[in-house]
Amino acid sequence: MNSSPQTVVLSGGVGGAKFADGLYRVLPKGNLTVCVNTGDDFSAYGLSISPDVDTVCYTLAGIANFETGWGQADETWNTLEAIEKLGGPVWFKLGDKDLSTHLERTRLLSEGWTLSEVISRFCDKWGIQARVFPMSNERVSTIVKTIGNGLIPFQEYFVDNKCEPIVDGFIFRGVESAYPCPGLIEAITKAEAIFIGPSNPLVSIEPILRIPGVREEIQKKEKVIAISPIVGGKTIKGPLAKMYTEMGKEPSSITVANDYRGLITGYIMDVIDRELEKQLSQWDIITMSTDTVMKTLQNRVRLAEESIAFLDREFSR
Amino acid sequence: MNSSPQTVVLSGGVGGAKFADGLYRVLPKGNLTVCVNTGDDFSAYGLSISPDVDTVCYTLAGIANFETGWGQADETWNTLEAIEKLGGPVWFKLGDKDLSTHLERTRLLSEGWTLSEVISRFCDKWGIQARVFPMSNERVSTIVKTIGNGLIPFQEYFVDNKCEPIVDGFIFRGVESAYPCPGLIEAITKAEAIFIGPSNPLVSIEPILRIPGVREEIQKKEKVIAISPIVGGKTIKGPLAKMYTEMGKEPSSITVANDYRGLITGYIMDVIDRELEKQLSQWDIITMSTDTVMKTLQNRVRLAEESIAFLDREFSR
Repeated sequence: MNSSPQTVVLSGGVGGAKFADGLYRVLPKGNLTVCVNTGDDFSAYGLSISPDVDTVCYTLAGIANFETGWGQADETWNTLEAIEKLGGPVWFKLGDKDLSTHLERTRLLSEGWTLSEVISRFCDKWGIQARVFPMSNERVSTIVKTIGNGLIPFQEYFVDNKCEPIVDGFIFRGVESAYPCPGLIEAITKAEAIFIGPSNPLVSIEPILRIPGVREEIQKKEKVIAISPIVGGKTIKGPLAKMYTEMGKEPSSITVANDYRGLITGYIMDVIDRELEKQLSQWDIITMSTDTVMKTLQNRVRLAEESIAFLDREFSR
Repeated sequence: MNSSPQTVVLSGGVGGAKFADGLYRVLPKGNLTVCVNTGDDFSAYGLSISPDVDTVCYTLAGIANFETGWGQADETWNTLEAIEKLGGPVWFKLGDKDLSTHLERTRLLSEGWTLSEVISRFCDKWGIQARVFPMSNERVSTIVKTIGNGLIPFQEYFVDNKCEPIVDGFIFRGVESAYPCPGLIEAITKAEAIFIGPSNPLVSIEPILRIPGVREEIQKKEKVIAISPIVGGKTIKGPLAKMYTEMGKEPSSITVANDYRGLITGYIMDVIDRELEKQLSQWDIITMSTDTVMKTLQNRVRLAEESIAFLDREFSR
């Protein structure tokens, strides 16, 4: 790691991971710190699974499945098929390669490693020249409050229930007593800029911000730029638009920006939502609109380059 | 299961599994109960692994790797290769299909199932029409006492250390307080005959016999026939001959029979050891010699048929 200005990205799974990957390819090596949501972490088959962290790491390592955005490329499913024959639950899609990550993480955790130490080791093994931090080494569990279906742990809501239950809110169990990942607050303090990736503000970014000290530290920064995960009233992936609607909010870029009010100073939204930009000027948020959909590697790189150019142009002292 | 006379086989891994498979193919369906050593059970990567039970089940289900005798046929190693890239230990060869067994067992155990309930379910899923009992649902751990290397858990001695340390004896930790698997004592009581498979008497059969009540119940039986795992002073597979030598005993069929003295009434040894038969007549053990090496499926079936014929011929009332 060199000592040039650090950039910190807050990220959930696929969208945030793609944006982080763009920055990773554009910034000098060693200048990127990705802080990842672990509220979705869960246990299955005795294994500790960190879906968002793995998605970010696989993406940065260049071993992610480009089609799905999650899991590893060239994956096989021999174990899962055999589990199905044994009558076991197969709602969480465990690929054979992906399984190795969960097995080795579980082994190291049982030997007393912290989650951030495990991730650091994995990044090293995968040749990732960026720091990937879990938001905390403590266990924080995102629980979905639903109307009619009670409380549902996030992964069960997301994968098993296919996001069908109607959402009423969220509980981040354990978040009040969780410590930020060692080095995270320092990274934010020293960072030149903070990006909030195009992840779900309600269940991917909010848990990170609720870790004691994180929001407070980010609020001190001048350059905090969010990328909207909503494009033309829809989400590229995931249940955010549906959640907003169920919670009585309009599924729009404006709603996301409103959720981040008081925290962000800059906002990047899709060119399709260009006409919404003027609504944000009254909130003291500098905006930019561009093509934010990242279907290709080139898209990621271009969005990262435009984001950095936006920073330099609008936030130069 | 029907109510015809039951046959109980005590078994370790490969040798006992092959013999049990021969009986399984020869006896009426539902008449076989296999009681399997679990002293080698261990945990790796947070998973509960029962090597001998799995070998027996895979063999009876016809999904065992015929070359190695352990693991599943047509196995792939994608997870293990990825673990190796992460720097994890790979001394225990976890195949992708084999992993599913450990994952699902671990999940069910964590939900409160007993090991025998798990195995019963697996047998059902694999279409095995025999009862496979772990010796106990309690944890019993075989520890190898070595000269110069202290105490080594069995799997570590067997796989990681390749049986190289010099053996001085064994500890079966937890065996005194372990209960026999539910149904095991009853199965022995009601059995027409008990076979002790050609498994290692010291580390595969002894732990079963040490479960409180098991040896006592078997000693009441008239027809208890062991098959020698030693052929011409050597073991087909595994470290028994080496262990005997290190413990100051001759690695021979006679030593095995001596270890079972007071328990067995019949003994089947290889035709190569034919001349040793007369030594056993003074111990009130009826003997038979035949080709005991089971390289093919036909060998297994023939040995099973000959064993049953031996029973009918020599032990008819």
